[in-house]
Amino acid sequence: MGLIVQKFGGSSVADAEKIRHVARIITDTYDKGNSVVAVVSAQGGATDELIAKAAEINPEASQREMDMLLATGEQASCALCAMAVEVLKYPVISLTGRQAGIDSDDTHGNARIQSVNPQRILSELEHDRIVIVAGFQGETPNGDIATLGRGGSDTSAVALAAALNAQVCQIYTDVDGVYTTDPRLVPQAIQLDEITYDEMLILAHHGAKVLHDRSVALAKEKGVVLEVLSSFSGNPGTMVKSAIKHDNSRLVAGIAQEKAIFLSLSGIQNTDGVLSRIAALLAEKDISADLILKPAKVEEGATVCLGLKESQGEGVSQLLLEHSDSLGFHTLESNTYTRISIVGQELDRAPSISQRISQLLKNSNCSDPIMTFGQHRISLFVSEDDGIELLPLLHQMLFEETANQIPK
Amino acid sequence: MGLIVQKFGGSSVADAEKIRHVARIITDTYDKGNSVVAVVSAQGGATDELIAKAAEINPEASQREMDMLLATGEQASCALCAMAVEVLKYPVISLTGRQAGIDSDDTHGNARIQSVNPQRILSELEHDRIVIVAGFQGETPNGDIATLGRGGSDTSAVALAAALNAQVCQIYTDVDGVYTTDPRLVPQAIQLDEITYDEMLILAHHGAKVLHDRSVALAKEKGVVLEVLSSFSGNPGTMVKSAIKHDNSRLVAGIAQEKAIFLSLSGIQNTDGVLSRIAALLAEKDISADLILKPAKVEEGATVCLGLKESQGEGVSQLLLEHSDSLGFHTLESNTYTRISIVGQELDRAPSISQRISQLLKNSNCSDPIMTFGQHRISLFVSEDDGIELLPLLHQMLFEETANQIPK
Repeated sequence: MGLIVQKFGGSSVADAEKIRHVARIITDTYDKGNSVVAVVSAQGGATDELIAKAAEINPEASQREMDMLLATGEQASCALCAMAVEVLKYPVISLTGRQAGIDSDDTHGNARIQSVNPQRILSELEHDRIVIVAGFQGETPNGDIATLGRGGSDTSAVALAAALNAQVCQIYTDVDGVYTTDPRLVPQAIQLDEITYDEMLILAHHGAKVLHDRSVALAKEKGVVLEVLSSFSGNPGTMVKSAIKHDNSRLVAGIAQEKAIFLSLSGIQNTDGVLSRIAALLAEKDISADLILKPAKVEEGATVCLGLKESQGEGVSQLLLEHSDSLGFHTLESNTYTRISIVGQELDRAPSISQRISQLLKNSNCSDPIMTFGQHRISLFVSEDDGIELLPLLHQMLFEETANQIPK
Repeated sequence: MGLIVQKFGGSSVADAEKIRHVARIITDTYDKGNSVVAVVSAQGGATDELIAKAAEINPEASQREMDMLLATGEQASCALCAMAVEVLKYPVISLTGRQAGIDSDDTHGNARIQSVNPQRILSELEHDRIVIVAGFQGETPNGDIATLGRGGSDTSAVALAAALNAQVCQIYTDVDGVYTTDPRLVPQAIQLDEITYDEMLILAHHGAKVLHDRSVALAKEKGVVLEVLSSFSGNPGTMVKSAIKHDNSRLVAGIAQEKAIFLSLSGIQNTDGVLSRIAALLAEKDISADLILKPAKVEEGATVCLGLKESQGEGVSQLLLEHSDSLGFHTLESNTYTRISIVGQELDRAPSISQRISQLLKNSNCSDPIMTFGQHRISLFVSEDDGIELLPLLHQMLFEETANQIPK
């Protein structure tokens, strides 16, 4: 028995009945002798309503005022959750991010937690109280409210778990845990018992939506064990940690997929250092891309291809066009693809896997895809239709046959 | 030009269009060279929605959690108002009660402001920013959020005006100012240019809804000049201050009316000190009543009557019944009346006024009312129907004829 941090997202607290259910999960955990700190998001839809209200008044409102407005969503939700725990006759208190000691920088709308002072929470826990904290928010050095940006409530929970030295940080969602791939696309997808931080980070970065990469990166940095589990089923979830048990080891952890943009810069005569120059340009904007150099006949010049998240396509196109002279390309072409990413910490030790994937592709009806290699990852850029056909085939080969083993 | 505090209630910020209008009032004041601190309530209806949400989850939620929930209403509203000022290209910042330095006690749901530390506001004003403050809330000594209870946003505004030494605290409402009586009941009602704190306090305590007595009491204590004015008409309002100009002096300031409960305790044989014992019982509960002793034939005993606010009727009945032995009454009867209160600081110097009122009553169709006298006040307890007939007659006699003059 120890201290458990639990995080409940917006869909878990969307209405009174769901909030009552969350209160039962929290009090069940407390009944087992644990101290419980629960972090809650705004009620599903509440944030969108607030954004719409702001847009009606000022579509270009400052991020500082947006944070002041949006933070009310989590504050209301944590008060309502505390009220639901009160009904069950347990001692409970709700705290805003500030009251919970969460200090952030002042990058409004996308702030990062700088430190957590858990004094108030510890004092409440000493009084045997359940503590419900408003996620997604922190206090800036000058006492303003800042929201934490993408995956903010997960990050709040991980930061609190680290500061409180919690035994585990449970992230409650609407699925049973982390799956080998998206079960809505491949019904044969299997729930993982365990996954490493690195694997989870790469899956999250390449389209797996169950956790946000920023919160996983923080958990890795602070050594916080995460458990991703369902707030509905009551089943054990997936543990996210630094290393998995030896008898659970496997070649591939999972397959993520997302829409991607593929930019082709053609007519490049001088290819010396062009990839590193592009990588440096992207790094300045904190963007990572799959980069490929395609040599061609001398008179046509070479082609450099960049595989990017869909949301980054437009910004990167503009950036590259601004540097077209120094990079020496004469045409920029943009295409939409599905990027399928096969992820596994042990993947780098199994070069044969790419041959087996190639073989699978040849036996399929898919046109020849572009294949790129990253750390612990192989990605395929395919058309949307080919992606729909390929994902189940890849899943079958990697998880449903006996092939997902680390080579001796 | 100086520092002006402006307070906008829930109906003034009820929707985007109204918030835009408030932003124009604020920036017009700023354009005239003033520093502006605006205090806003939650958007009309927002607080009721939050209360309904809480009631669905926990009808007996702790007041501490209710405050956590309700305070989001004002926080959202001050952010939205700041956004509307941003659109007009003025420098602006919104602040929660805590950020504005409003410290309260921890009587959740009905907290009182203990002190105001205006450092943050002064620093924002030095940067020429318009400051929008969330009304109705303060921070308790242990860092929790408390709401200020009845008239809370008015009180926030007055406390800030005092701490900032503001030139005036403008209370914006949906009427042009303080009237001689409710203009919805008597269309001939006249807007007052000026009224004293004491008159306003008594009118507010006896049913005039334009200001809450707690905020008026604070303004009196701190010497803050109030102006009650319309956020729609743009006309000068009514100034509330310690003394009115000599050429504005008049006998009666206004007539308030409200539903009241009249409790009759009968069969009292020993009347020695009974009134003071009842008054002491009520004082313990912070309740003031109109008290009347009606002597009767010895065998029947005397009757004591208490005129009370309607909301206090049940509680006081119970309290008196608990002490029926010591007070020595055998029957408690409760009746509903309309209490019409004629208020004026100079009234005590004009005893003839009660005779003129009696004469008016005799000439009317009203049954003989119960008349009580308080400081600066004469009250009549009449039936609802009689009240409807009497109020315009009293108004006519006191304000529309040339009788409202201080006797030489």
